[in-house]
Parts: sequence; structure tokens; C-alpha cells
Amino acid sequence: MSNTFESLSRIKHKEYHQLVMSAEEAVTKIPSGVNIGMSGFTGSGYPKAIPLALADRINEEHAKGNPFKVSVWTGASTAPELDGALAKVDGLEMRLPYQSDPVCREKINTGQMHYMDTHLSHVAQHAWFGFYGKLNIAVIEVVGINEDGTLIPACSVGNNKTWIDQADHVILEVNYALSEKLDGMHDIYYGTALPPHRKPVPITDVSDRIGQKYLSCPAEKVIAIVETNAMDRDNNFTEPDESSKKIAEHILNFLEKEVNKGVLPESLLPIQSGVGNIANAVMAGLNEGKFENLTSYTEVIQDGMLSMIKSGKLVNVSATSLSLSRQGFSELFDNIDFYRERIILRTQEISNHPEVVRRIGVIAINGMVEADIYGNVNSTHVMGSNIINGIGGSGDFARNGYMCFFVRPSIAKGGDISGIVPMVSHVDHTEHDSQIIVTEQGLADLRGLSPRQRAECIIENCAHPDYRDELRSYFERACKENSGHTPHLLNEALSWHARFQESGSMKIAKEDVAKGA
Amino acid sequence: MSNTFESLSRIKHKEYHQLVMSAEEAVTKIPSGVNIGMSGFTGSGYPKAIPLALADRINEEHAKGNPFKVSVWTGASTAPELDGALAKVDGLEMRLPYQSDPVCREKINTGQMHYMDTHLSHVAQHAWFGFYGKLNIAVIEVVGINEDGTLIPACSVGNNKTWIDQADHVILEVNYALSEKLDGMHDIYYGTALPPHRKPVPITDVSDRIGQKYLSCPAEKVIAIVETNAMDRDNNFTEPDESSKKIAEHILNFLEKEVNKGVLPESLLPIQSGVGNIANAVMAGLNEGKFENLTSYTEVIQDGMLSMIKSGKLVNVSATSLSLSRQGFSELFDNIDFYRERIILRTQEISNHPEVVRRIGVIAINGMVEADIYGNVNSTHVMGSNIINGIGGSGDFARNGYMCFFVRPSIAKGGDISGIVPMVSHVDHTEHDSQIIVTEQGLADLRGLSPRQRAECIIENCAHPDYRDELRSYFERACKENSGHTPHLLNEALSWHARFQESGSMKIAKEDVAKGA
Repeated sequence: MSNTFESLSRIKHKEYHQLVMSAEEAVTKIPSGVNIGMSGFTGSGYPKAIPLALADRINEEHAKGNPFKVSVWTGASTAPELDGALAKVDGLEMRLPYQSDPVCREKINTGQMHYMDTHLSHVAQHAWFGFYGKLNIAVIEVVGINEDGTLIPACSVGNNKTWIDQADHVILEVNYALSEKLDGMHDIYYGTALPPHRKPVPITDVSDRIGQKYLSCPAEKVIAIVETNAMDRDNNFTEPDESSKKIAEHILNFLEKEVNKGVLPESLLPIQSGVGNIANAVMAGLNEGKFENLTSYTEVIQDGMLSMIKSGKLVNVSATSLSLSRQGFSELFDNIDFYRERIILRTQEISNHPEVVRRIGVIAINGMVEADIYGNVNSTHVMGSNIINGIGGSGDFARNGYMCFFVRPSIAKGGDISGIVPMVSHVDHTEHDSQIIVTEQGLADLRGLSPRQRAECIIENCAHPDYRDELRSYFERACKENSGHTPHLLNEALSWHARFQESGSMKIAKEDVAKGA
Repeated sequence: MSNTFESLSRIKHKEYHQLVMSAEEAVTKIPSGVNIGMSGFTGSGYPKAIPLALADRINEEHAKGNPFKVSVWTGASTAPELDGALAKVDGLEMRLPYQSDPVCREKINTGQMHYMDTHLSHVAQHAWFGFYGKLNIAVIEVVGINEDGTLIPACSVGNNKTWIDQADHVILEVNYALSEKLDGMHDIYYGTALPPHRKPVPITDVSDRIGQKYLSCPAEKVIAIVETNAMDRDNNFTEPDESSKKIAEHILNFLEKEVNKGVLPESLLPIQSGVGNIANAVMAGLNEGKFENLTSYTEVIQDGMLSMIKSGKLVNVSATSLSLSRQGFSELFDNIDFYRERIILRTQEISNHPEVVRRIGVIAINGMVEADIYGNVNSTHVMGSNIINGIGGSGDFARNGYMCFFVRPSIAKGGDISGIVPMVSHVDHTEHDSQIIVTEQGLADLRGLSPRQRAECIIENCAHPDYRDELRSYFERACKENSGHTPHLLNEALSWHARFQESGSMKIAKEDVAKGA
């Protein structure tokens, strides 16, 4: 989507007109070795022109034999034009806190760039504390600049407030492809402080607005403004598959039982849901289900949530990012006054804040790579070593929410990978933090159970039948041969993963079964 | 310590006099199969008579061939008279959330009783949410009952408020051996609620009092009162050894550098410190050091903290338990008016509350069993299967604090165990939550580092020289043979632990080294 636009028309702060320049010129102001804070969260609100121009510049410098790398801090994942482009030219020294780009992933897993995978709620404060070093430059996408110099944020807020506050210099991208009517949807909280001067974050309800509509930025920090005209990544909405529908069904049945027991209110509690197929299925299920007046306190708004807002099922959503398909954006922009009443986009330190998540009692639903029989959850790594994306906000919500679900299909790769294993090959959420594990096979409610009880519950309810006997065998032999609170056989605990690496399947080959292996 | 005392003199609510009975009579009101919430936190404030009488009753029933078990929820660890006695007679079905009793440990690790090891900040709310089932009976130690029926808590508060609120019936132990002058030291917050009705916890400073001095208990719940006259467990204070002193020195030097960099204020931020030798060494170091006007927001007050309060170094301490030696108690009771001005004992949901811990910016210092080269921390299990004590509040403080340290000596068992391993055999704190690892060898500051950078930092700074080459070898081979964001060799990752189980040492035998193993 690209429109013609009248240059400068969205830059109402006249003093800034002299700073408008091309992306190519703007990136001459970025030296090698700096830390750059870029806007962007889940393929939304990232700068569109500067990173590409910077990648070109880096490429040229490398061609001349000059070293040139920068470190990039964002909100979460961005797009090929940012992470992909910079990784491709080997321009990234360190990247944090979450990414999902295939080129980036390859460079990280081959040791060609550093990546720090940290809780999304930690990033802003750790930057303030100085734990990542000095932030030199912020590159932030906005949809307009007001007369007083305040900035109208784009489709994600992420860490933009922190990057602007912490950086010495700020480069703005004013994107004309996005509706200016986003104005008013954001809530930028300026009440944060460093210890010992912190006060409570005054949110007690999803719909509470506690900040201001615009980002503040000291004029003297702004060194360049680039005008752009490009949509966010097309965050395609995929219809839920059968497995996802079954997982959603287990969750919805469970929630209904909890409501009937009086554990949960009839309109539930604010829902947080990760992105992807299963999340979409849960939303679709809720949209067709019996619960009314639902709310959501989450990171990302996807198409499914728009449908629920439209149907009236979902009355309020708080997030930090709009991650929509083209059709979703059309729906949003065509009915922006309706949605603006029901959607708040916050800074991610607030959308993921442990204090708020615990207080309002979020129901957290997040995907995973694998769980083990004791309920430890791996959200990030394949076979222990290779990272996929990152932990994102799953830990913020799982640890601090009212209850938490970790979900995935029981098998993958045509059955060669089991989603339930004797011991996970990487731990992102410990046994202390996981409560409810769900696969298409069923749901394991681990609340109040000891590790041995958990093992039985998970194996019987969640494991795929093809792997159930092997898991039972492992657990029984571990209890007998080694005993313990959390019985394990250390020589065998990770053998499923090692077998997959060697043979391409976690299944024991038939000839080995015959030999009693 | 045992005094003669005038019976009923501390039970000023006259209507309760008729409920005073022997422990033996009181336990006839406890049927098999119930969930009992008992007071007690770190060997302090636990009921002294009821658990022993209950153990006798269970023993008698078992002798008659009658099944008799109860589940016991506490604040944290208690004493041989509670956990030990009940475990010894096989009277415990489920125990949560933290314990440190040797008999209990043995029963847990042999699968004879269930144990749920959960974050201390989660326990009260999960009980309120109904996640552990119904609480039937509360057994709570107090130092007196006021005319209006309110209760003066003893030397720990723990989950007592929650147990009284949630239980159908309450049994009280009034302990005459403890000074009534504890009156006024406690702060019981009654502002908690269930979502969606929660409000901010209004603490912004360690010294803030936000609740009432006494526990409230509806008179109709009280079914028995037992008078006792016995001190808490003698929580002997041991002088720090050389290794602990070195660890403390590394921490203090580091804190001084952070202050000089302006990252920390001159009076630091509120300190949380686990119990034990290293914690004592840190306190001793701080007491001799240059920092003034220190504060502490922690779980447990040990003798070392009393010394720091006395010296004036430590101006305010918030905790949920006094875990003192006999000498410490004498010092406290002899100068109770002085200490009452400087010590607040809170409910543990507040002492460990993520919201407060993050807001005030706690500096968390906790022991560990082992760390791996990527900074994952095991706080609970030996060789993957056998639990020692439990996670306690370490996760509450490590995840939510301003900065967190995990500490231990680099070796144990005369060098046969390395505190730094290729992969931890159990994860309690993930790479996302650990920041600074310290052994007597040195300090690894992991903030802002990728996993590969972390590995080098931990191996070079923290590992014992006897294990450094082997760790380097593992890391280098993992990078080369398997690569990845977090390079591991799955067939070898847990081999150090397996070797210890087989040979009694993590060291590779000399003949195997010669063979190039």
C-alpha cells in the first residue's frame, strides 16, 4: 500500500522542516560501533527506510575493507527490512531483546552475531539502569509530529519512549502510509522512575489510561527526519488448523469448568495470548463461545482480536502493538473511531509489567517448543542449541498472571518430534512457573501437584500415543533406578534429542526396540 | 529457654478461655485427609505442641492399621518438631511450599510423600484462588490474644493471615516463652483482594507500614487453644569461612564500582539476602564497609542483620521472619524497643511481592547448587533428581529485583563437585533471570551478554582452575561440532553429573584423560 503524499504536511513542528532529508543522508550520521534503539514490535511500527539505507552504507564500508557494525535494541521482532537487511550485511554486533528473522536467526546460531534474549518487561528498565551500555541513537517511526514537537506513535509503542529518553540523538521516520487517525489510541506513561523513587503503576483495569497520547522528545536530540510511505509487514492471518482447534477447545472447556467452580468470574479475567495459529483458534473459540464482556491485557493485537471487538465479545484490549494483515488494517482504519474507544497501545514496560499483570490477574496463553514430563517448558531452542525466536513476554505473563497455559501440538515433523520429552533441552519456564500444559491430546492441570504427579498427568493427558509408552518407561525406570523428588536418568534424559540429531527422529528405530534398547 | 507462666494470662479475650486445652485434646479435632495451614518460616514462629501431638496420634492410628495422613502448607521451613515429626510417622500426604528437614527430604526423595516447591510469593494467592484445594484447618503460633480477639503474631508472619482467612477452623498456640513485646513489630496488610478487584500495594519505601499490628480471626473459627512455653529452633550463627569471605569481598567490590559508576545510589538499594554462611559474610562485610544508611527488604532476619542495625549501618529492615540464635534472641528481646523502630515483619505475600520488590529495586543475593556456563541456575536439586530444600523466595527476588547475584563456592566435596557445569541438572532460574554469578574465584557480570559471551565470562571468572580446562573444552567443542545460540553437546551436557553418580567425582579419571576421553 503506498499513497502519494504532500511532503512536510505531517511535520507540524516547523522548526523540524530543515531536518528533513533522505534516508541515505540520515544514515551518514550513524557511526560504526553505536548502540541504536529502534522502534518496532512484532512486525509493526519499525522504521522502514533507515535500516535499509544503513545496510547499504555498511555494505559499502565493508566493500572498502572498513569494519562497520552496530548493536540494535528494539521492542520485539521487526521485519526483513530491518533485522534481515542488517544481518545480511553482517552489520549487527548485538541484537536484543526478541527477533524472528530467518537471516538473523542463521547468523545468531552460527555465532556470527550476538543476541541477548531477555524478558520484554526487563528491557526498558535495564536500559535505564545502564546494564546494556549507553544508547547512542534512537530511530523511531511515527505517523506525525505535532506543532509542539510531540510525536504521534505509529502501530506499535514498544520501547520507543525509553529509546528517545535514553539516546543522545534521535532520528524520526514519519510514515504517511499509516492513518493519522491512530492519534489518541496510545497511552505513553511518563510516571516511571528509577529506584528508590518509584511509585505504583496506577492501572487497576485494562481500560485505564494513565499517560499521555504522544511521545515527548527534546528538540535538540533530533538530528534527522525521514519521510516514508510504506505499510507494516503483512502479518497474514492463517485460519486455525485442526490441531489448534482441538487445543483451543480443551482450553475453553477448562475455563468453563473453572467459571462453574467459581474460580473465575463469568467474564473471565484479562486474556493474554501469544501470536500464531493456536492463539487465533482460542480467539475464534471465544468469539463463538458463551463468555461475554471479555477483556485482554496482552502484547499484540492480531486480526482475531479485531473480530472479537467487532462482535462485542471483547470490550477492551490493552497491548503494545497492532500486528495485522492488510485486511485487518483496512478494517481498523475504516472504523478507527470505533476501535480507538476499545484499544489502548501502551509502552511495553507497562503492557508486560509484572506489577500490572499480577494485579489484574491475566490469563496467560503461550506457545512452546516442548515441555518435559515435570512441566519445565522450552520456548526458544531446538535441540538445546539453536534458537528459534526468543522468550518474548511469555515469562512476564506466565510467572505473574492468574493462571498460565503452555500449548503446542503433541508431535511435529510428521511424528518425528515429540512435544513432550523426558527432559527439555533448554528451560525458559521452570516447573515453578508452569501450570497448565495443553496439546491436541488433552490438558494437564498441574496446579497443586508434585513432580511425580505432574509426570503422570502430562504423559496421560498431553503426550501423543506414539510416545506415551516410552515416556512411561522413562519415568518408571527413573523412579526405580534413581528415585528422587524429580526422578531422572541423566544418561538418558536428553537422549531423545540426541537421537533426533543423529537419526532425524525421536522414535527408537524398530530394530533397536527389538534389541531392547 | 523455658519460663514458668501464669496460664490464661496472655489470653485476654475471655470468651476463649473455655477453648484452652492440651495439645493431645486439640489434635482430636484434626481428622485424616485434611489440608492444614501451619505457621512457620525458617525455623521461626511454627507451632510447637500440636504437630508433635498430631504425629503421636497418627502413629497410634497407623499402629491400629488405620490410614492417617494430612497435607501441610506453611510459610517456609519449620523445625524437627513439625516437618520432622510428621514425616517420621509417614503422616504427610503433600507438603508445600519450602522445607529443609532431613527426614522430610528423605521421604520426598524416595517418593513416600509429595512436595510442591513453589515461589513463596505465589503461595498465598494460589491458596486464595483455590489452586491447592480447600484449606480445612489453620494452626497458628501467637504470643498473645488481645481483649478484642485479635492475635499478636510470634517471630514470623509467613502465610498466617491467609491460613486464618482461608481455613474453616483455627487452632491457636499461645507461646509464653517469647516476649510479648514483639507487639507492634508486625504489619499485617489486609488490602489484598482477588482479581479483578486488586489495588496497588502502597509500599514505596522499606519502612512503610501499610497494615495493622494484629492478625484478625473470626471467633467462630477458633476451635482450640493450646498454651506452650518453648523457644524457636536455635538458628545458630556460624562465622563465615574463607570461601564465603572471598565471595562477599567480590560482591562488595562490585557494588562499590557500581556506586562509583553512578548505577547505584551511595546507600545502595534495599538488600535481600538468603540465609547461611555466605549471606552472613556479606552482612559482615557491609558492616565493616563504607556504605551507610543501608536498608533491607528480605525474608529472614538473622543475627548478622541485628549487628548491622545495632551499629547503625542498617537503618530499616523489612522481613517476614526472625531466624535468630539464642544469643540473637536475647539481644533482640533485651533491646526490643530499639529494634521495633527499625524492623517490620510482614506477611510473606508482601515481603516477597514482585510488585514491591521491583518497585523499590531490591539487590538480591542468593545461594545456589550450581550454575552452568550459560548462566542457568540450579537452586534445589542434587544431580538432577534429589531435592535439597526448595526454591524459596529466590525467584521472587532474582526476577524482580534491581540486580541479582547467585553465589556459591566453585567446588564442593573436596573438589569432586564443580559448582560450574556444562549444563545444570535442574533449572530454577533461567538464563533470562541470572545476572551476576559469584564464586570465591571471582565474579561474572553477565548483564548485556549473549550466551557465548556468558560462557567465557563464567568459565574464566568463576570456575575452579581444576575444572576450567574441561569447561573450555566442552564449550569450544560445542561451538565447533554443534554450533547454535547456546552451543551444547547433548550426549555430554549432563555427563559430569552422571560421572559423579558413577565414580563419586565429576573429574575425569587420570587414565581416561590419558586415553583422550
